[in-house]
Amino acid sequence: MTRADSIPKATCLRLSLYLRHLDHAAAQGLGTISSAQLAAALGGTAAQVRKDLSRFGQFGRPGVGYQVEDLRRAVRRILGVDRRWQVAVVGVGNLGRALARHQGFPQRNFDVAALFDVDPGTVGTFVEGVEVSAMDRLREVVAERNIRLAMLTVPAEAAQAAADALAKAGVEGILNFAPISVRVPSGVALYPADLTVLLEQLSCAARCVPAARAAEAGPEGRIGP
Amino acid sequence: MTRADSIPKATCLRLSLYLRHLDHAAAQGLGTISSAQLAAALGGTAAQVRKDLSRFGQFGRPGVGYQVEDLRRAVRRILGVDRRWQVAVVGVGNLGRALARHQGFPQRNFDVAALFDVDPGTVGTFVEGVEVSAMDRLREVVAERNIRLAMLTVPAEAAQAAADALAKAGVEGILNFAPISVRVPSGVALYPADLTVLLEQLSCAARCVPAARAAEAGPEGRIGP
Repeated sequence: MTRADSIPKATCLRLSLYLRHLDHAAAQGLGTISSAQLAAALGGTAAQVRKDLSRFGQFGRPGVGYQVEDLRRAVRRILGVDRRWQVAVVGVGNLGRALARHQGFPQRNFDVAALFDVDPGTVGTFVEGVEVSAMDRLREVVAERNIRLAMLTVPAEAAQAAADALAKAGVEGILNFAPISVRVPSGVALYPADLTVLLEQLSCAARCVPAARAAEAGPEGRIGP
Repeated sequence: MTRADSIPKATCLRLSLYLRHLDHAAAQGLGTISSAQLAAALGGTAAQVRKDLSRFGQFGRPGVGYQVEDLRRAVRRILGVDRRWQVAVVGVGNLGRALARHQGFPQRNFDVAALFDVDPGTVGTFVEGVEVSAMDRLREVVAERNIRLAMLTVPAEAAQAAADALAKAGVEGILNFAPISVRVPSGVALYPADLTVLLEQLSCAARCVPAARAAEAGPEGRIGP
């Protein structure tokens, strides 16, 4: 098996999307699934699916396809979600609260087990049964509750200090929803998740929808500069 | 100038991250910024920054750097955020509500101007002054309010139908927070934004933090299979 630390980011992302679809297939009671079916669901090619999965061993049989349950189990193991992860949310505003309540996380083995904020009016309150702790207790709470991942939802000006505190406390991965880039030591995984950046990707793409669609929409529907 | 529709996704993303940093620099009162400074903030190289920006014309002067305000204006135009966008949220649960309230969107010219849900108890209620409409009014409301982008926060089983309805109503871009891949016609931009997929990217990376860090953390800190 390929060493886990050589999995490229893009492969990780596709594996995660395969897993979503495999979960869906399992819920529908499908026993087997072909690489072509997986590819069609994600808009990719069957060859890409086979290549991605073959990195991790021999799955599936030609003409038969993959056993849905076997492949689910394997992909969950590769992604590291065959175990539960304790996750912190740093910054308990609207978005932080929604993340703390997001049912999709515990369903996928991610438990929001710690919340942090600087606001004295928020510290000591509970969201989904988890008490909000003060930032100066971060290191202690992270150790106590075995927190390994964190979601950062603080304002721009507080983001770097919070990321530093998380790294110092031993957190291994940070999902950064703050509207600014932060730096972390090597060895800490960092993914930008600024929702406005995501929307800007859409507006950047929508500025230039293909001519075919613009024509279909009529002259008023024409897009672009 | 390069045609807007040839901007690769990765460039779009970097431009958006440059813009974040330029906003930050402007707030700090900086008049000029070098490609090296922009690169350092994002963990990239100065050559990459210069290459990205040179696609769109001549910015900056050797030895002087970029004028922060000029570059901000140019990047905003390239990203299409020099104008306001009306955005819909489809699915008014915890996450949908948080998105409707997210202060970062209007600050960046994205107005959540329409909300849709299937729950009769939710339809007719207001979030941040916007009334929740029934799904069967989607086409009408999208046209009335000039909605061009949408954030999809419905359960997996409702996602494809909602994406179909949005595409049919003429929406040009969809940010898909639902835990399943959806298909859209060509000409509609689609970005996956499943938050659990983002967390899985972290767990995938954290499974295999480099040996250096594991050693530093001591034997109990060892990660991976």
